[in-house]
Amino acid sequence: MARHEITSRQNERVKQAVKLRDARQRGKQQRFIIDGVREIGRALDAGIDVVEVFLCPSLCNSPTVQQLLTRLDESAAIVAEVTGDVFEKLAFGARGDGVVVIANTPARNINVLEIPANPLIAVLERLEKPGNVGAILRSADGAGVDAVIIVDPQTDLFNPNTIRASVGTVFSKQVCTASPAETLARLREWGVALIAARPEVDRLYTDIDYSQGIAIVLGSEANGLTDAWQQADIAGVRLPMQGIADSLNVSTTAAVLFYEALRQRN
Amino acid sequence: MARHEITSRQNERVKQAVKLRDARQRGKQQRFIIDGVREIGRALDAGIDVVEVFLCPSLCNSPTVQQLLTRLDESAAIVAEVTGDVFEKLAFGARGDGVVVIANTPARNINVLEIPANPLIAVLERLEKPGNVGAILRSADGAGVDAVIIVDPQTDLFNPNTIRASVGTVFSKQVCTASPAETLARLREWGVALIAARPEVDRLYTDIDYSQGIAIVLGSEANGLTDAWQQADIAGVRLPMQGIADSLNVSTTAAVLFYEALRQRN
Repeated sequence: MARHEITSRQNERVKQAVKLRDARQRGKQQRFIIDGVREIGRALDAGIDVVEVFLCPSLCNSPTVQQLLTRLDESAAIVAEVTGDVFEKLAFGARGDGVVVIANTPARNINVLEIPANPLIAVLERLEKPGNVGAILRSADGAGVDAVIIVDPQTDLFNPNTIRASVGTVFSKQVCTASPAETLARLREWGVALIAARPEVDRLYTDIDYSQGIAIVLGSEANGLTDAWQQADIAGVRLPMQGIADSLNVSTTAAVLFYEALRQRN
Repeated sequence: MARHEITSRQNERVKQAVKLRDARQRGKQQRFIIDGVREIGRALDAGIDVVEVFLCPSLCNSPTVQQLLTRLDESAAIVAEVTGDVFEKLAFGARGDGVVVIANTPARNINVLEIPANPLIAVLERLEKPGNVGAILRSADGAGVDAVIIVDPQTDLFNPNTIRASVGTVFSKQVCTASPAETLARLREWGVALIAARPEVDRLYTDIDYSQGIAIVLGSEANGLTDAWQQADIAGVRLPMQGIADSLNVSTTAAVLFYEALRQRN
């Protein structure tokens, strides 16, 4: 599509785009903003519907940015070239990639997850920090976790910090949000073993057979898991703590569990 | 020691304390600032020399804060009660624990590390983000890593973000900074096996025997390890990457390696 130019920070499209830094506006507009070449590329790969592109030509010199712009020019998105001044208003912090895009928020529903035989599933309940959610999604991608279910999310899935910390892995169709009740119902339907990370239990995470179909449930660092996960068929596990601290960051716990599962599966 | 009162934001001690948010001032004053009850408690446990305490009585109601204040009152530190207004100037972000302290920067030298038989050692080279350094120190503490050597640090060891992400585990005497040359010399003297995390190699991290004395070397996510670690006696290892992303966060890689070492050792 042909590019048009925007030179004013007061441009209405720019104003609407900047508003998407705010969660309520993302809910209202049903759109979100993506920063970063790698993240935008992964959004396109995942079939995210990019509707609008803002690029600052003077910042778009690298070959990877140029490749991305070619893909975006070939998409159905409206592409605007903006001045450095306008781009500064649009860009998140000091990100210097020279391009941000606006996308339609996709539906991410537990019912459309594709669950293979013997799946490895992660369940994240009520994590407070979007950065932690993103970091866990990145580790889940690395370790080959088949699906991530985000239960009672405390921020929207496409929070800029989640996108950034996940390095764009949040765009996968195998990531969804759900309620505790529907999550438990589906997990039982799928017939997977259920383990929950709980610092207070005796059983070590290494005493689990991860070669079976299994779901790993992780809760908030501050408040732990809710009672929804206190059930006879959910085994608590913990990581050994050898030092002075009494707990690990939830994204650390997640990574260790995911990679132990992968180690046993290989 | 008897408490005194400070009611003015222009108080000279307050001004000097606030300056310690800045790395250059920490270098110049050879002091640093600690926020958070848990972090301050761990500093005292590690023998850190706390010289000054600022507390805001109206925010210090919890029993854990009161216990800490008793310890601080019994120490040699000068204790000041400050108004809410003054505390707001002193406190880091929204931390509501009601107490911050100033400590003398301790020497943390590779020559005073206590290295047990068969040690598990972590080496971090040129990590850019203090939050990553802190997160790795927290995981190292959890996994029972015997010593952490921070090579060519890009921020000072007692950066507030490092302290916070480490939850105070940074205060351990088993954490030090050093040059690459002296680190390699000591590691060889200690006779430990050397492995370096490198995303580009073939060997998986699970193909290593961690029950021997071993040092795990981790470098910057953006730039990788410097040539100092390209040596015949240093084996590159990587984590498997099963998804779309080509790398993990360095603190994630660190946690998975440390806990695999602990798993093998148990």
